[in-house]
Amino acid sequence: MAQEARLQRGIESGSASSGRLPQPYLLFLGDTVEAGFAKTAFGLRDWAPDLCVGEFALPGAQVTVGLPQMRPADAADKGARALVIGVANSGGYIAESWIPALVEALEAGLDIVSGMHAKLVCIPELRYGAERLGRRLIDIRTPPANLPIATGLKRTGKRLLTVGTDCALGKKYTALSIARAFADRGVKTDFRATGQTGIMISGGGIPMDAVVADFAAGAAELLSPGAAPDHWDVIEGQGSILHPAYAGVSLALLHGSQPDVFVVCHDPSRSCLLGDEEFAVPPVEEIIDLTIALGRRTNPAIRCGGISLNTSALDASEADELCRTETARLGLPAADPIRRGPAFDALIDECLKA
Amino acid sequence: MAQEARLQRGIESGSASSGRLPQPYLLFLGDTVEAGFAKTAFGLRDWAPDLCVGEFALPGAQVTVGLPQMRPADAADKGARALVIGVANSGGYIAESWIPALVEALEAGLDIVSGMHAKLVCIPELRYGAERLGRRLIDIRTPPANLPIATGLKRTGKRLLTVGTDCALGKKYTALSIARAFADRGVKTDFRATGQTGIMISGGGIPMDAVVADFAAGAAELLSPGAAPDHWDVIEGQGSILHPAYAGVSLALLHGSQPDVFVVCHDPSRSCLLGDEEFAVPPVEEIIDLTIALGRRTNPAIRCGGISLNTSALDASEADELCRTETARLGLPAADPIRRGPAFDALIDECLKA
Repeated sequence: MAQEARLQRGIESGSASSGRLPQPYLLFLGDTVEAGFAKTAFGLRDWAPDLCVGEFALPGAQVTVGLPQMRPADAADKGARALVIGVANSGGYIAESWIPALVEALEAGLDIVSGMHAKLVCIPELRYGAERLGRRLIDIRTPPANLPIATGLKRTGKRLLTVGTDCALGKKYTALSIARAFADRGVKTDFRATGQTGIMISGGGIPMDAVVADFAAGAAELLSPGAAPDHWDVIEGQGSILHPAYAGVSLALLHGSQPDVFVVCHDPSRSCLLGDEEFAVPPVEEIIDLTIALGRRTNPAIRCGGISLNTSALDASEADELCRTETARLGLPAADPIRRGPAFDALIDECLKA
Repeated sequence: MAQEARLQRGIESGSASSGRLPQPYLLFLGDTVEAGFAKTAFGLRDWAPDLCVGEFALPGAQVTVGLPQMRPADAADKGARALVIGVANSGGYIAESWIPALVEALEAGLDIVSGMHAKLVCIPELRYGAERLGRRLIDIRTPPANLPIATGLKRTGKRLLTVGTDCALGKKYTALSIARAFADRGVKTDFRATGQTGIMISGGGIPMDAVVADFAAGAAELLSPGAAPDHWDVIEGQGSILHPAYAGVSLALLHGSQPDVFVVCHDPSRSCLLGDEEFAVPPVEEIIDLTIALGRRTNPAIRCGGISLNTSALDASEADELCRTETARLGLPAADPIRRGPAFDALIDECLKA
């Protein structure tokens, strides 16, 4: 399967994080009652189904990602090597009520992988359990040690970065979808993850939001090292260059990634920034212009490859129509990377054109 | 003295860092043989002379900032409350050979203040000495705990930010000089420090380069809190929006500072970025345009107040001529904030105009 091959290649080629993650996974859903708080688990199911042997929820949970339900010992029997915390709650905490289940996973021979703000190693029961049982506690949000200061120097190989008009509107899904399409066309491609779910999917990467500011561009340089001239790194974007809280991360990632091509991700159903009614979503054109004005500093040849529209709020014919009108208006291919179809093929053509 | 009053007010008003620094200082020069590596000490001598009781160098040092030379016990007798490491060596390390002198300071009753990358508290002799003697070890580069995510919301009061075409060309000196000129005109003003030397001068601030990327804009918001409508915060800039390593920090500081006015700092004698011949210094106009395009996101009224030219490589008449031609070319006041004179008065007028 192309996706698995691509993902495995991503792992084999080595990542910038502290080594490969133990895979496959058992997805832990905790006692989650709302699907929105299990987006890490859904992301893994959607993008790395071959890495997921099952799901494990506590009594009271009302969310399923549709995988076989099993306890840690059964998952270990089926080959799982780690339990992944598939929950992304507000605050990023590890609930007291989860700890017995997490200890059960350690006792079943599984490592634990977490992208929460709270650190596994700071929970005494888990630290003690892992030491006693010889298991690993892997906190994805801990960036690699000894990150370099960026040099800005041009590296070999090609790079594509997804950028956005806001947070949480499809930059990771777009990058994964483009990486898969590149691989399907026989292009040598690695997906480069910059956030917790992306890192779990690809088995490596750097959590950009956790890096100390002075080293953020350096981390981005490390993430997509020099490669063969015909090799593409497809890099997961973060935040937005016009987001009042996260623009610094977005700019460091832009400069360090030195993309040849960027794709602007946009949700046409969103008028204000997520959770922030004070700020309008900026026009796609403004993001294109600013990304070129800033990005050409480390890659003078930077260009926009098209627009990724999150049309999940529209039906199929509305989505098609919007992609057509936006393509005409902007003079660049606009497509939904989840719906795919001819518009998406045109976007891939534009990204790969010499 | 206006400067002392302003600095004291800066301290009294409370800073965003972990409390007031113990002052006045004894400036420690280590065994430095080159003035460039003692820029923290020179900055303190120039901008906070009333906070410096003397200097203390080891045998072999070839640098003096011109203050009375004394050992820690004499400095304590003269009222010093802390020894400040006035050295900024490459790598930011604390040399083995300094440790006996630093222990001597602790024994004399002084705290130690350091802006080095290496942490005082990680040196066993110092940690043990401080515990034994009840002294404080203050690592300036440790940012405050529990920084918030930025909201982007408008705060009351006025703000000025210095921005740059490169690093290390006068953003701190320009901010200090403007803050002093504002205070001299009777304007309520606080200098807000974002780097180690600025923090030592003003007694508070946040080391922006040491903040985790996701919290950088939030740190900048915390640094210049809401204030009286006629109060000005003059904020020390960092890096450059077009610096390949540090632009993320610069953008986070711009968004979080939400300046009403910015002043572009430029060194006309520099053609390439400091220590980086691959990158030309960008034109002042490009920095103005990008700063407005990005900064209006959190302050739609942002405007450029003028250009601060570092003319240290020119003689007085050349400097005057350059300020005149740049003022005419850019249509904004251009002045050297160290030389001052009528051009600088015009710059201050422009910054303060309603």
